[in-house]
Amino acid sequence: MAGRFIAIDWGTSNRRDYLIEDGRVLRGSRDDRGILEMDGRGYEEAIAAVRAEHGDWPVLIAGMAGSNRGWREAPYVDAPAGADAIARALLWVEPGRTAIVPGVAWRDPQAPNVMRGEEVQLLGAVAAGLAPANGLLAQPGTHNKWVEMADGAIGRFSTAMTGELFALLQHYSILSRQLGGEITPGAAFLDGVHDASAKPLLTSLFGARAGMLLGYRAEADVADYVSGLLIGADVATAALAGRDAYILSDEALGGLYAAAVAALGGIPHLVDTRAAFVAGMALIWSLIP
Amino acid sequence: MAGRFIAIDWGTSNRRDYLIEDGRVLRGSRDDRGILEMDGRGYEEAIAAVRAEHGDWPVLIAGMAGSNRGWREAPYVDAPAGADAIARALLWVEPGRTAIVPGVAWRDPQAPNVMRGEEVQLLGAVAAGLAPANGLLAQPGTHNKWVEMADGAIGRFSTAMTGELFALLQHYSILSRQLGGEITPGAAFLDGVHDASAKPLLTSLFGARAGMLLGYRAEADVADYVSGLLIGADVATAALAGRDAYILSDEALGGLYAAAVAALGGIPHLVDTRAAFVAGMALIWSLIP
Repeated sequence: MAGRFIAIDWGTSNRRDYLIEDGRVLRGSRDDRGILEMDGRGYEEAIAAVRAEHGDWPVLIAGMAGSNRGWREAPYVDAPAGADAIARALLWVEPGRTAIVPGVAWRDPQAPNVMRGEEVQLLGAVAAGLAPANGLLAQPGTHNKWVEMADGAIGRFSTAMTGELFALLQHYSILSRQLGGEITPGAAFLDGVHDASAKPLLTSLFGARAGMLLGYRAEADVADYVSGLLIGADVATAALAGRDAYILSDEALGGLYAAAVAALGGIPHLVDTRAAFVAGMALIWSLIP
Repeated sequence: MAGRFIAIDWGTSNRRDYLIEDGRVLRGSRDDRGILEMDGRGYEEAIAAVRAEHGDWPVLIAGMAGSNRGWREAPYVDAPAGADAIARALLWVEPGRTAIVPGVAWRDPQAPNVMRGEEVQLLGAVAAGLAPANGLLAQPGTHNKWVEMADGAIGRFSTAMTGELFALLQHYSILSRQLGGEITPGAAFLDGVHDASAKPLLTSLFGARAGMLLGYRAEADVADYVSGLLIGADVATAALAGRDAYILSDEALGGLYAAAVAALGGIPHLVDTRAAFVAGMALIWSLIP
């Protein structure tokens, strides 16, 4: 389809709206009405409010609003999946007016995987020329995806529970007192990245505490070290050696992943996630049959 | 020293008291006044109450009461550490009347480690003939220790944050709905044990969710699988091949570790922790100069 439309990035904790025409954002807004806040109710009213704000245009929704914990469940499209397959598989809540982008599934019984929301950024990064059509892309966050793009389509991918695990350790574990501060990719972080490949994660995590108690590591360095352990273990799961890795992330977290990628022999590139999302939604919109 | 004494196993969440004479328990009690509940106060009064219950005998305390979050900090003894070294290094709160057993430190800058409370069970297991003087011992729980005993002394050891990590995942993670039930060491558990050696832990944890969403694993099997992943990763850290492994644990958790040990090529033996603790305290008591 052509013409203006409203793209909504409807995640677990946040929602971002963009009024898009010809791939350009005319206006946008953001709030914290993610699907947890919605709690399964009021989606029609929320979309009516978005149209009241941006104009009465068609609405294309991506993200967790399409999950079984969101508004309507949009069944997964099987990878390899290009933008055309996704555009054909939209879940139309109101034909021609309101649609939800499906997630993508990798149906390998030995390494099954799913994504929901990430597919738009991936396809958009390639469409906008921010990442190559056959590159290795990463999407750090609560759950980091490593994705092999194949001729611009989403190919094999894996997911590491890195951000969630760090948050659990930070909030609830025996290490929580040490994990509060800002993380920087200095010597302690790189120590963690190295140890993640050299030693078992479960013992290194306790070793972070023991090393501090015995005076081998400053308490102020424990957070950087533990972050390095987890991100290092995550990056080590990617087939990286000598390859370019395109990291879709904000600068703070993206900088940590870039440091780990470089330390483990890859060549990191940071990609702007907003630009990738907008390009992805515009591409899918243009391909709707 | 000889004669009757009161042994207290003063942990983070619980406290157990034993009146011991000649290595035999004359009477015992147990409550939930661990060091968290004590919150740094009232130790003198608590010990007076123990003496009022069991008689006015000397008191020997082991466990987290001797940590910087307990009553008085008893500095670590360096490993290799035998019962004689520990008996010489007791922290006497009141000479001849009340003492605290020190923890043990492994001061290797590449793999520093500490224990506090575990040392008594380890030494006691060997003293009571429940484990050999040069065996490999494990102590599953919040933090599992793998310990190489050397001529009856505590040698090199490592610690895996296994139980704590499972509890974090069970209570707070995206997998929490699936991790509530009882764990049994069946096919799904052994699948996890196997995957722990074959795949990165961070991706297998998310894979547990993806496999369920895509129908490759029954939701009822997720808890067993995730437990198998973590215990399998833990057991894989031990130098196990073909060796006997002596597991100091209750039957439920010990049974899971035994299954993982057997699956990874070791020969598991369960050791009674109460008997090991009592024997350890009696041994240390007998060696006080």
